[in-house]
Parts: sequence; C-alpha cells; structure tokens
Amino acid sequence: MRDIFRASVSLGIGLFFAISCARSDQYTIKEIGSFHVGGRQVTLSGLPEKEIIFTKGGPPTIVNPNGEFQVEQMYVQYIIPTDQKGKYPFLMWHGGGLTGVTWESKPDGNPGWMQYFLKKGHAVYVSDALERGRASWARYPEIFATEPFFRTKKEAWEMFRIGPQDSYNSEPAKRTVFPGARFPISAFDQFCKQFVPRWATNDEPTQAAYNSLIQKIGSCVIMVHSQGGNFGFHAALSAPEKVKAVIAIEPSGAPKPGPELEKLKNVPILIVWGDNLEKQDFWKRVLPNVKAFADDVRTRGGKVEWIDLPKIGINGNTHMMMMDTNSDQIAQVVQEWIARNDLMK
Amino acid sequence: MRDIFRASVSLGIGLFFAISCARSDQYTIKEIGSFHVGGRQVTLSGLPEKEIIFTKGGPPTIVNPNGEFQVEQMYVQYIIPTDQKGKYPFLMWHGGGLTGVTWESKPDGNPGWMQYFLKKGHAVYVSDALERGRASWARYPEIFATEPFFRTKKEAWEMFRIGPQDSYNSEPAKRTVFPGARFPISAFDQFCKQFVPRWATNDEPTQAAYNSLIQKIGSCVIMVHSQGGNFGFHAALSAPEKVKAVIAIEPSGAPKPGPELEKLKNVPILIVWGDNLEKQDFWKRVLPNVKAFADDVRTRGGKVEWIDLPKIGINGNTHMMMMDTNSDQIAQVVQEWIARNDLMK
Repeated sequence: MRDIFRASVSLGIGLFFAISCARSDQYTIKEIGSFHVGGRQVTLSGLPEKEIIFTKGGPPTIVNPNGEFQVEQMYVQYIIPTDQKGKYPFLMWHGGGLTGVTWESKPDGNPGWMQYFLKKGHAVYVSDALERGRASWARYPEIFATEPFFRTKKEAWEMFRIGPQDSYNSEPAKRTVFPGARFPISAFDQFCKQFVPRWATNDEPTQAAYNSLIQKIGSCVIMVHSQGGNFGFHAALSAPEKVKAVIAIEPSGAPKPGPELEKLKNVPILIVWGDNLEKQDFWKRVLPNVKAFADDVRTRGGKVEWIDLPKIGINGNTHMMMMDTNSDQIAQVVQEWIARNDLMK
Repeated sequence: MRDIFRASVSLGIGLFFAISCARSDQYTIKEIGSFHVGGRQVTLSGLPEKEIIFTKGGPPTIVNPNGEFQVEQMYVQYIIPTDQKGKYPFLMWHGGGLTGVTWESKPDGNPGWMQYFLKKGHAVYVSDALERGRASWARYPEIFATEPFFRTKKEAWEMFRIGPQDSYNSEPAKRTVFPGARFPISAFDQFCKQFVPRWATNDEPTQAAYNSLIQKIGSCVIMVHSQGGNFGFHAALSAPEKVKAVIAIEPSGAPKPGPELEKLKNVPILIVWGDNLEKQDFWKRVLPNVKAFADDVRTRGGKVEWIDLPKIGINGNTHMMMMDTNSDQIAQVVQEWIARNDLMK
C-alpha cells in the first residue's frame, strides 16, 4: 500500500513537470528559422542612370539601375515543435494579394492557424510567395512583365464575403455585414494593413518556386488558401509522391479535369468552404471549376472530401475563415480530417 | 534507506522532465504572434481603369484602381520566451533594402541573431519597416512620391564590405574578398534573395510608424542596423523614457549634434563597427557623422560605448556582421554590454 502511494507520488512529480512542459499556453520549440528558395539571377543593362535624393535637402546621388539581381525566389519561415506529432512538415500557403501573415495572429490580435497547428504538434512552414512580403519583387516591365495592382478595402469587403456587394462604407459604423458573419468586423481596417500588391503575370515563376520548395522539403502536407489553391494542386501534380495531402481553404482555382489528375489518386484532398458563396459573383464562377476538379479526381480513384461548413452546422464564415471569430472551430474540423487520414504520428 | 531511495527516484523523474524542458537546443516559448502598427487610410480617385489578364489566354478583367487603402503601416513579429530574462522587449530593426529576415537564419542556413537573443531569454520583436516585406508598399507616385530602386549584387558586395571596390564578378569563383572577410562567401547569392526595393522618400512615415511601435510596446531595448540606426536614435528621442537602450550595428546615420540630444542622456547607447571601414567611400563619409553624434551625447552626460571590433581583436567583419561566420562572437559582445547595463533581470 505504502509502495503504491510512493509510486504515485513519484509519478505525480514526474507528471507535474511533464505538464508544465506542455502547458497549453506555451510551445516547446526545437527550431525556428527561415530561408529563401527558388528564383534566378537576371542582368539588366542599357537602362538610364537616375538621380535620387536620399535625404531631404541633400545632394542628389546618381543611381545606376543596371546590374545583376536575384529575382523570383520565395520566402519560408519554419517553426518545428520539439514534440512533433504531425508525420510531415505542414506547409501553409496564403492567397492572392496576401502574405504568410494570413496564418499568424488574427487582425483582432488573437492567435491564428499557424499557432493552432503548431500547438497540435505540426512543424509549420509559413511562406510568402514570389512577388510579395519577404519574398521581394522585381523591377517591371523589365523583369516582371506588367505593373502590379492594389486591392481596395471595398473589393476585399465584398470578395472576402464579409458583407454583400456595395455594403462597404468608408465609415466603419455604416458598413453592412452578412447576417451572422463571423469576421471580427472591428478589426477589418487592421486586416487591410496585411494587403500587398499583386501581379497578374507571375503564375509560372510562382509555381516554379513552390515546386522548388516541395523538392527542398520532401514529404509534406500543404494547406492552401484562395489563390494558393491552384498552386497547391499543381505542386501536388509536380510531386505526387512527396505531397501527402492538400488541404484547400476556399481555393479560387484548380487544374482542369483530365488524365493528368490520375496522379492525385493517392493524395488525399480536403476542400473547405464558408458561407454566402452563392451571394458573390466571383465565387459563383469559381465553384463549378473546383467542383469539376474534385469530381474528376474522385472518378480517377482519388479521395476528395468537400466540406460546406454551413452543411455541418457552422454558419457565417467568410473567405478569411482563419481570421473569423470561430477560426479554432474550423481548424479543429481540419485537424480531425488530418488525423482521420493517418497524417499524425 | 528505502524511503530515501524512493525519494531520489521521485526527484530523478522530476528532474528528468525539468531538464528536458530546458535543453539548450530548444526554446520554450510563451507566445508567438505578429501585428501591423501605424499607417493611415488614403483614398485614390480619378485614376483610369485598367484591363488585366489574370489567366494566360483568359479574358481581360477591368480593374478600377480607385478606392480606399491602408498604407504606411509596419509589420512586427514577436516571440516571447517562457523564461524571459531580458528586462524589456528586444526590438530588432533592419537596414535599408532589407527586411526583418536580416535577423533570422543566416544565408548559410545557420541560426542568426533572432535565435541568439531569443535563447538568451529576450522577448524578440522583429519588424519589417514601412515599404518592404510584410509591411507592404503603396502605389507611386500617387501615395509614395517616387519610384523605388533596387540594389544590385555588385553594390551589396562593395557597400557591405565583403570585398573591395570593383571586386565583384558575375562568376562566384572570380570574386575577391577582403583578406580574412568573415561573410559566408558561398552564401552571397543566397543572401541577395533577401533584398527588397527601397524608396528614398519615405523617411517621415517610416519614422512615424517606428515611433508608433514604441508607443504600443512601451519600455524596450532597440537593436538597429545600418539605415535602421537613424530611425532608432530618432525613436529614442521621441520617447526617451520608454527606450531603455539603443544598440546600433553600423548605423548609416545619426541625429545632428545639438541641445535636443540632451534627451538621450539616460539612454545607454552601444555602437558597433566591423572591419575595413576606411576602405569604402560610403562608410568613410558616414563615420564622422555618427562620431559627432556620439561625442555630443557624451558631452551632454549620456553614455555611449563605441566598439571597433578590430580594436578588441575581432577582425574581418562586414557590414552584415549578424550573418558573418563569427556572428555569435559579436552577439556575445552585445549581450555582455546588455548585462553590464542592467538590462537583464
């Protein structure tokens, strides 16, 4: 009896420390780091010199724009937990006009999905795709073919289905949201600080950099959002033996049906949609394309799970569901799919 | 006897878990997160619509560039260790044409100063200043006054004092370095992937965003590099009661001497310089300005420590000393100064 008591005490002390290691409000991290991958060197020549004034009132400095540059690389930051429970590195790819910040703290300051999946024991790799954020961008029209464009707050409000068409107003108090919309409305202007310019002509080098990333990392799970969807599906096609799953959050595009999709038959795919899709023209046009892709992959023996959140009782989610107030609830749906698909240790 | 044995076992189990918590090759992190701070809303109007082709061969989409935008914010990522040993948040501000990546993993893949100071128990706040990286940038000439410019690899090679003037060559094998230069030469092209475009006309809003950051964080220590130097010293002038120290790594500028510098008399300042400064015209012009600043602050009762690394026996360091092969050795010099200045708990 006393022995059992003593054994219990021993175990208790051990557990105390084990639990303080794993307290839910902290992470034990093996490694934090970052790198750039992909890209190429270009040489510019024959461009005229420019006078640039670096300091107000100071003398102009002659700047010669000609020379050699590294361009078209992408940026990746990784955080690897000590107790890695996911079988594979977990790559998080943002959408158009956005960066890896999508997955970090939410605009209302609460923890986002990077933190969520890290706490679940995934080694997270959050990237900034070519042309934006820490990936940098290159001179146009000499290297990037066209000029960039900038998303207005109104476009984001509508395109991301926070409120209906023409419900955006300069004054926050006068903006109308979809009934029950889950976006943290008071943080909308803060969210707009995350926007970055985008180009319409960089798909090929962007895909090439993503494919390089897969080659560098090896076996992995990819979570993609919006414009990242198409890149993610094509990355899986480029290395179906390495991409162990694709989790697509409202992908804005997908590969066309056809024999090539046979390659995806062993890559489990999850596609998740929020609410109010049928109320927004852009998404009404996108849905049939992604549906055709999903159906075709299924026909070829692939496994595609398609979740309309409202159909499982989760209502009001926007295109930016990783920032919505119930984002953890959706992350849990994703995490359960990951576990069901044998992607946890 | 048996009791003592059992107690030892209990303690042993406890210690095992305690030690596995604090292994030196891992971090125990309380919180990882990010935010944007500063900036303003602007409205563009009267600009012509543009046709943009989003998908090769697809129909053009009309894009209206007019509307409301968030601009001139900056980005900050923070990592807070559980066992915080630094008294204050440790802000890390990069130089010109660069981002917070400066402080992360080095281009040769080894851990950088973000990881170093995190392991020393500092809560690190690594930012991307206005106009670059995850801070984003704004349309020009409508919002940013001028066009940006791009650093060539040759300029970086010379300006960052990896090799002498005109020693850069397109072919890596033909590049000449300063004797004993500590930059990881084979990672130079990889380093160039970190470069971002820069503007000569954004100093005021950049300073404003940095000052907002100080107001948001409160008491803090700032580590600045190169172009970040001038911003750091001015941030200290804007809130000398909050900025508990400025650690300037090769600052490329400093406030002019004058009565205003009286405000810095209670802000300890460390200024660190690498090697071969006298062999590069730009740095020869910079040094007297920073020297005049340091002398003036001292005259007014301030405490400025000026370290020429070669004078303390550390030779061959470049402008990018946080990436040099002996970067930990220099970080240690900085960490010791931090400890001497009563900035550790």
